[in-house]
Amino acid sequence: MNNFNFYSPTEFVFGKGREDETGRYVKKYGGTKVLIHYGGGSVVRSGLLDRVKRSLTENGVAFAELGGVQPNPRDTLVYKGIDLCRSEGVDFILAVGGGSTIDSSKAIAIGVPYDGDFWDFYSGKHATEALPVATVLTIAAAGSEGSGNSVITKEEGMLKRGTGSDVLRPRFSIMNPELTQTLPSYQTACGATDIMAHVFERYFTNTTEVEITDRLCEAVLLTMVKETPRVIADPDNYDARANIMWAGTVAHTNIVGVGRDQDWNSHGIEHELSALYDCAHGAGLAVIMPAWMEFVYKHNVMRFCQMATRVFGCQMNFESPETTALEGIRRFRSFLHGIGMPINFRELGAKEEDIPALVEKFGLGDGRTYGFVRLSSDDIAEIYRIAARAEL
Amino acid sequence: MNNFNFYSPTEFVFGKGREDETGRYVKKYGGTKVLIHYGGGSVVRSGLLDRVKRSLTENGVAFAELGGVQPNPRDTLVYKGIDLCRSEGVDFILAVGGGSTIDSSKAIAIGVPYDGDFWDFYSGKHATEALPVATVLTIAAAGSEGSGNSVITKEEGMLKRGTGSDVLRPRFSIMNPELTQTLPSYQTACGATDIMAHVFERYFTNTTEVEITDRLCEAVLLTMVKETPRVIADPDNYDARANIMWAGTVAHTNIVGVGRDQDWNSHGIEHELSALYDCAHGAGLAVIMPAWMEFVYKHNVMRFCQMATRVFGCQMNFESPETTALEGIRRFRSFLHGIGMPINFRELGAKEEDIPALVEKFGLGDGRTYGFVRLSSDDIAEIYRIAARAEL
Repeated sequence: MNNFNFYSPTEFVFGKGREDETGRYVKKYGGTKVLIHYGGGSVVRSGLLDRVKRSLTENGVAFAELGGVQPNPRDTLVYKGIDLCRSEGVDFILAVGGGSTIDSSKAIAIGVPYDGDFWDFYSGKHATEALPVATVLTIAAAGSEGSGNSVITKEEGMLKRGTGSDVLRPRFSIMNPELTQTLPSYQTACGATDIMAHVFERYFTNTTEVEITDRLCEAVLLTMVKETPRVIADPDNYDARANIMWAGTVAHTNIVGVGRDQDWNSHGIEHELSALYDCAHGAGLAVIMPAWMEFVYKHNVMRFCQMATRVFGCQMNFESPETTALEGIRRFRSFLHGIGMPINFRELGAKEEDIPALVEKFGLGDGRTYGFVRLSSDDIAEIYRIAARAEL
Repeated sequence: MNNFNFYSPTEFVFGKGREDETGRYVKKYGGTKVLIHYGGGSVVRSGLLDRVKRSLTENGVAFAELGGVQPNPRDTLVYKGIDLCRSEGVDFILAVGGGSTIDSSKAIAIGVPYDGDFWDFYSGKHATEALPVATVLTIAAAGSEGSGNSVITKEEGMLKRGTGSDVLRPRFSIMNPELTQTLPSYQTACGATDIMAHVFERYFTNTTEVEITDRLCEAVLLTMVKETPRVIADPDNYDARANIMWAGTVAHTNIVGVGRDQDWNSHGIEHELSALYDCAHGAGLAVIMPAWMEFVYKHNVMRFCQMATRVFGCQMNFESPETTALEGIRRFRSFLHGIGMPINFRELGAKEEDIPALVEKFGLGDGRTYGFVRLSSDDIAEIYRIAARAEL
């Protein structure tokens, strides 16, 4: 096991009706003038925004608001948010929405106290100061409600880049699974795929002797394998929604990933897809992740056998471990297909002829990635090709 | 799933040699004058205390010190610590040791800013203020390094009582598994038993539809089942020690227990044993927990079958689920015996004729406990009797 620090100071406020406590928690964590940041019309239509505002007003907390966050959130709106916070004297950012809204909120939070361009932090600079951020979560997916990470897309050139710092960890996150019940199945499934991918990026490691985090990873994956099809079949199933929502947070505070090298190449390879086609991140992952597995599994067949037997209920084939490993990957892809995810380029709306452009954009040049298996540009092209042509 | 809050703001600083960073972290969390609180001679003999002091001095942090914490830590030393902190102007408590030292430190931290008797907080009063506490952990067991809980024994009458508050959660905890390598096997096994008990107290619940926390509980238990015998056989196995140490923290921050009713009756029933005989808490739990299971399993046979199959590798007997449930409990007791734990009163050094006194001390009167199964005084007496006479 590697040395590590684990720090997850967010207060999670979980369950039915908890959004009515938003104002109380903003006050508890010192906010006096809040920017409510959100995306499209659903939080307005559902009445959630009004409930949040009422809770703020009841607690004497003033607010400004900025909607319009898109999936794959853009730098352009971040600049607008920073200006608004400065002119309105905002001292606390409240994200009401999903991963995109939270990521956009974190970018605003980092930009307000900074003299330069906030994009510096998405180009390698480390943040040590930010306005406090909190969230009212409306989709189980990104894990951004408990993480110190944020991913933003620069509109010019559709460049998708991330940043991470403990100062970006939300002070509190309100998580009411009921709020996710109105989500279309496709978005629910995209979220579930993202959650599983967050675990797999940590699960496939070259660090040995990490039983506790292996088992915690498998705990989240087993939960997702059980609960996701239930929610797709019955969108109003509160308990299944609740299990998925908490699993999504556990998957990404890093409690399942400490003490081990991690991979994250599938996320990187996917980011180019969602940047180019503006597709959902989870859908891109559904296409990329099994393809990545098929490309790398020979690096450690036994680890894929572990996944196959412990997560996907395969019987170990002791005469042919490779068969077991491949069966596990097959079951994963079949699971994704079963919850309505695309499994190849055609279903995603991507084009095989774009692969050279995707690889170019990945920007590896003659280098190699880091992670479970170090990948060259040629390797990445091959993973895109496997993804393009995959079938059940 | 029940509504819940989850809040675990402690920064965990984990791995080889990390105690040399103690001073830096005390400074980071605002300490200027520290009380170093510790137990017996082992932290002195091992040189750990000197390394911690050196780190403090290098970082310009002043300190006072108070040793002498006993297992089942006493109120008498707490009073002494409170006086010392006040006279020395201490603003930060650093526990160097295990659960007893940490619990004693928390009691001091709660008492210093309070005008009345600190014991008020162990008699039902809720703490809202305390000096900051941090830990350098030397045994994987109590989980106190990540929890807001503390248990103290009042010397007069050997009354063992607990308190809990978020203000008692350590600011940081330094966790170097190497520091546990010199522990005698018996103490290592006691710690492992305590860790497993912390999970079981949460695992046995009447709340349905809690797959994610069920699976997280099982992740910790499976880790303990694998790693504990390795450490008993090979005390210098760093990786096994590391897995157990992190499992011990995960077991007790409550991340495996949120959203569900919990039990904790075994802990209560055990506390009277360690209070009366001054035995190790983990050893008492090894005797009580399987006995409690045998007494309550009929309340939910399927839950015990889940434990038996998922944690102890039993094959489900579909014709006779009870057989499976009992086989799981048998394997748990056999596991405890295998790591050197006592499994009955004789091996623990307790006496069956003391049962009436133990029940009396539990203080239930005509009432019943809360939890998985509500227990009367007669039920508790019966659990003690099962524990007294248990054999493999």
